[in-house]
Amino acid sequence: MIKSPTAPTLKIIPLGGLHEIGKNTCVFEYGEEIILLDAGLAFPSDGMHGVNIVLPDMTYLRENKHRIKGMIVTHGHEDHIGGIPYHLKQFEIPVIYGPRLAMALLAGKLEEAGVANRTELRTVLPRDIVRIGKHFVVEYIRNTHSIADSFTVAIHTPVGVLIHTGDFKIDHTPVDGEFFDLQKLAEYGEKGVLCLISDSTNAEVPGFTPSERSVYPNLDRVFGQATGRILVTTFASSVHRLQIVLELAKKHNRYVAVVGRSMLNVIAHSRNLGYIKCEDNIFQPLKAVRNMPDDKLIILTTGSQGEPMSAMTRIANCEHQEIRIKKGDTVVFSANPIPGNTIAVVNTIDKLMILGANVIYGRDKGIHVSGHGCQEDHKLMIAMTKPKFFLPVHGEHRMLVQHAKTAQSMGIPPQNMVIIDNGDVVELTQNSISVGGKVPSGIELVDGSRAGVVKASVLKERQQLAEEGVVTVAVALNWEGKLSVKPEIHLKGVVTSLERSQLQKSITQTIETILSDRWSEFAKPSETKIDVDWVGIQTQLERGIQRLLRREIQSNPLLVFLMQNPGEESVVTTPKVVITTPEPEPAVKVTGRRRPRTVTKVAS
Amino acid sequence: MIKSPTAPTLKIIPLGGLHEIGKNTCVFEYGEEIILLDAGLAFPSDGMHGVNIVLPDMTYLRENKHRIKGMIVTHGHEDHIGGIPYHLKQFEIPVIYGPRLAMALLAGKLEEAGVANRTELRTVLPRDIVRIGKHFVVEYIRNTHSIADSFTVAIHTPVGVLIHTGDFKIDHTPVDGEFFDLQKLAEYGEKGVLCLISDSTNAEVPGFTPSERSVYPNLDRVFGQATGRILVTTFASSVHRLQIVLELAKKHNRYVAVVGRSMLNVIAHSRNLGYIKCEDNIFQPLKAVRNMPDDKLIILTTGSQGEPMSAMTRIANCEHQEIRIKKGDTVVFSANPIPGNTIAVVNTIDKLMILGANVIYGRDKGIHVSGHGCQEDHKLMIAMTKPKFFLPVHGEHRMLVQHAKTAQSMGIPPQNMVIIDNGDVVELTQNSISVGGKVPSGIELVDGSRAGVVKASVLKERQQLAEEGVVTVAVALNWEGKLSVKPEIHLKGVVTSLERSQLQKSITQTIETILSDRWSEFAKPSETKIDVDWVGIQTQLERGIQRLLRREIQSNPLLVFLMQNPGEESVVTTPKVVITTPEPEPAVKVTGRRRPRTVTKVAS
Repeated sequence: MIKSPTAPTLKIIPLGGLHEIGKNTCVFEYGEEIILLDAGLAFPSDGMHGVNIVLPDMTYLRENKHRIKGMIVTHGHEDHIGGIPYHLKQFEIPVIYGPRLAMALLAGKLEEAGVANRTELRTVLPRDIVRIGKHFVVEYIRNTHSIADSFTVAIHTPVGVLIHTGDFKIDHTPVDGEFFDLQKLAEYGEKGVLCLISDSTNAEVPGFTPSERSVYPNLDRVFGQATGRILVTTFASSVHRLQIVLELAKKHNRYVAVVGRSMLNVIAHSRNLGYIKCEDNIFQPLKAVRNMPDDKLIILTTGSQGEPMSAMTRIANCEHQEIRIKKGDTVVFSANPIPGNTIAVVNTIDKLMILGANVIYGRDKGIHVSGHGCQEDHKLMIAMTKPKFFLPVHGEHRMLVQHAKTAQSMGIPPQNMVIIDNGDVVELTQNSISVGGKVPSGIELVDGSRAGVVKASVLKERQQLAEEGVVTVAVALNWEGKLSVKPEIHLKGVVTSLERSQLQKSITQTIETILSDRWSEFAKPSETKIDVDWVGIQTQLERGIQRLLRREIQSNPLLVFLMQNPGEESVVTTPKVVITTPEPEPAVKVTGRRRPRTVTKVAS
Repeated sequence: MIKSPTAPTLKIIPLGGLHEIGKNTCVFEYGEEIILLDAGLAFPSDGMHGVNIVLPDMTYLRENKHRIKGMIVTHGHEDHIGGIPYHLKQFEIPVIYGPRLAMALLAGKLEEAGVANRTELRTVLPRDIVRIGKHFVVEYIRNTHSIADSFTVAIHTPVGVLIHTGDFKIDHTPVDGEFFDLQKLAEYGEKGVLCLISDSTNAEVPGFTPSERSVYPNLDRVFGQATGRILVTTFASSVHRLQIVLELAKKHNRYVAVVGRSMLNVIAHSRNLGYIKCEDNIFQPLKAVRNMPDDKLIILTTGSQGEPMSAMTRIANCEHQEIRIKKGDTVVFSANPIPGNTIAVVNTIDKLMILGANVIYGRDKGIHVSGHGCQEDHKLMIAMTKPKFFLPVHGEHRMLVQHAKTAQSMGIPPQNMVIIDNGDVVELTQNSISVGGKVPSGIELVDGSRAGVVKASVLKERQQLAEEGVVTVAVALNWEGKLSVKPEIHLKGVVTSLERSQLQKSITQTIETILSDRWSEFAKPSETKIDVDWVGIQTQLERGIQRLLRREIQSNPLLVFLMQNPGEESVVTTPKVVITTPEPEPAVKVTGRRRPRTVTKVAS
């Protein structure tokens, strides 16, 4: 496409959510103004040792924080709002607009993080129109998704109208009776949409995603067949699923005990706002249900993904304080495992079965449906909005590619769409779409201890520690270049068939050999005393020990080498031991079982 | 069932393969005689840091090695023969009978491990009958599976005939023309089978597993549509799949370059034995194909599971020495990801797509079928053999349960089957099946360095190191209970917002406080000198530092504490630092992100 250099240009810069499922975070920029759409978090993948939460690199927004006019939130899922409390510690956002349920959940998070004063939350209703800054006007269009109160948005900009779908499926029989506002969507399609930015999660799956309502008869049958207690696990945020379970509880004359902090939180806010409707007395505290008959009881719990600390996982491991599985229990997994969680989930199922539960799980049971549309939903979205340009988002690379193919099959020409990655700067004019640059787009890893960000160098150390352990060697030298005491050695996480005494002997020999061979290079007699290059000799000794370890125990543990010299007021030399990496990495790369060959070196 | 105490009893003791897919290892015992059926390995799961290979705990066989009369091998997959080289280092096996391909692959492994002299390998042909010891006679019955030359076996014992299916599906159009010997199976069914021991891998899947042959037309279409190079990845041991690719190479006039040591090995042995038939000149070394036209080339490679060091993964990471992906390449994943590998596989696919390849993958393409039978295959197996007793094996718990349900649906009563775990001793008489005890059945983890076995304590250390890192603190005390130098601190893999100098200051203060408060408890003046309980004071200091670290950096890194006292010839106290675990664990338990709260203690 030809782009006039003077044409007004809108920039779309996703900082998260592209080439991944998670941490959806998008920047819209016109002139000096920036608005944001959602700011989610992701969970750590294999190899991110000790990491709790993954956030996008926010360098670009930190550097442009004075330009931020506000944020639009589409719905209350963690991968859309979970990052906001962390970002607000780095910059203020003047105002955040969002649906009532999302804002209620977000308010709690901001309170907890102590950043509630760093922004203003404003709730919106369907078809509400808000102006942000001088250049942006946003209309909220009700859509259907697995969480209640979810929206597609129309963003009016100086170059034209963009439709950002948010997360969606097209559900004609929504559990809460809140239909997808297809009329409003069609109206935009009729008036003209410059660009459709659309959820690609299920782009590889043919057909329509079934309605959430389709789960009802299948759960109904399962509940009807259960003779003892029923335990149900699903995503805490699946408001409609929770509503179905509560309706079925009433139908089958069972009380419901809810287990898991996040689920209690979602239910409380959803009831408060009318997205979950049920009688008060259906809920019973866990302690109260102990004496109830088993066939009068449903336990609704978190842990559908086999998360290690969740209620269902603790129940399966017989580690839950209140709940013990017994013969006659029916356990229902009303959720599919997300890739990466499969093994944790099936292990949990197996343990529950071994404890005597009848576990209902699996894709063929009709007890779970996705909250994201498939290829036919995608086609309907494109058909309704008739966009000139198309930008697939919210998906891994192959999903974006497949979504683009779907759009092409409906007549959108390939030059009118781009497949992008996080950090790509999409430049949109009335006549063109193109990628015009790149902003920092790595990841920031929040440590399990929440003490800070896990840097790439720390992750490398952890990877090496995890795979090969650590060896600590402490020595003391005298002015003659001899060991004044014998070396002390500690092994942690190291596998070796050698005895410690044997290893100590080998290390002592290695040190003595290096000292006798090379001491004279590093110790020069000066006028009044011997001038020793302690750093130099320490480096030599460290290398020698590392070579020895590789040879003797066939591995490359991390080495902490402590050397005391007689000229010091310390048990070890003053230079700090630092990790030097072969090449400094700007973004964090994590691979499963890669064995980093980092070696410790001494720098002055 | 009622069991006469004097009735002759056969014991079946699986040491691996139950409640898991992997390391299939089964013991059959009658009187003093033991025979083995297969001895496989498994691959490490999440949390088994630095582990390469998982083996069954062989305590039972080590203790009973003089009773071992021989081994039966059913086929050449790693999860059936991969453990043998390791076990032969611990005990001899007088003779191993197995199919020609399995024995060829095994011979190479034994040679490499230097244990070829610890057993005798004897090859068998279909319907071969071998006698092992006084009590066992085994007939080999050809079956169909994803590797060629695979067998079901009939084991004649004093209590009756057992059929062990090995791994199987029922493929009526096998690629190599070697049909399942249903006639022999039926003959045993007619004569009477006491117990069927059957593969449960796909017990949860309804229907029949499609024939391997069904892959042919789908791969044919993919190959026909490719205009550039074709890269195909599948399991190295899928002999029939390799044959199909070679046939299609000929049909589409392409040469084949094979990449990956294991695949080259399997192809060489399979061609040698006639299980792969093709012309010599179809193969070209990788270096020779550089100058060939792209549309004349197939690259056949390992890495279908996204294994980090495999050829396909290195190609996707642009780290392969010879092969660079270019636009126009077609990459075919002729394998489904095994649970646990999904993310590695889809990441590899995405990277290949980003590099410009057209990647063909996914369950709906018909380019992969399982080597294991589904529910209808299982029914046919039960119908042919008409067993009195039924023992589902080779599967996770829920698969065993489902397989038992399938058997029940065909009239085998529940009391005639047992669902067991590794180590369970199944006691079989002419009239009963029951579980009569348990032998050690944990796991042994072979370290990545191959230097030895990873003990549970080492794995715990590695887990803690991975999640929270290690802090080394070195101090020296004098006879007055004062620090003679300031403490030295090293952090590795630790996340903290504190400056090192600040942490050093806090640790110094902590140590000084403890020394001034409690020195007098541990230092008693005796006649000639002060008698100091150095171990006691070291323990106090260590606990104090650990408390400080938890408080200051909100985590629990592993602490290596080195204390020098003036009475010693060493920089640190002589007692070894050992890890004490809250309770000694007989078997290794590994969980994903559990945070062990192990603390280091000093023992004298």
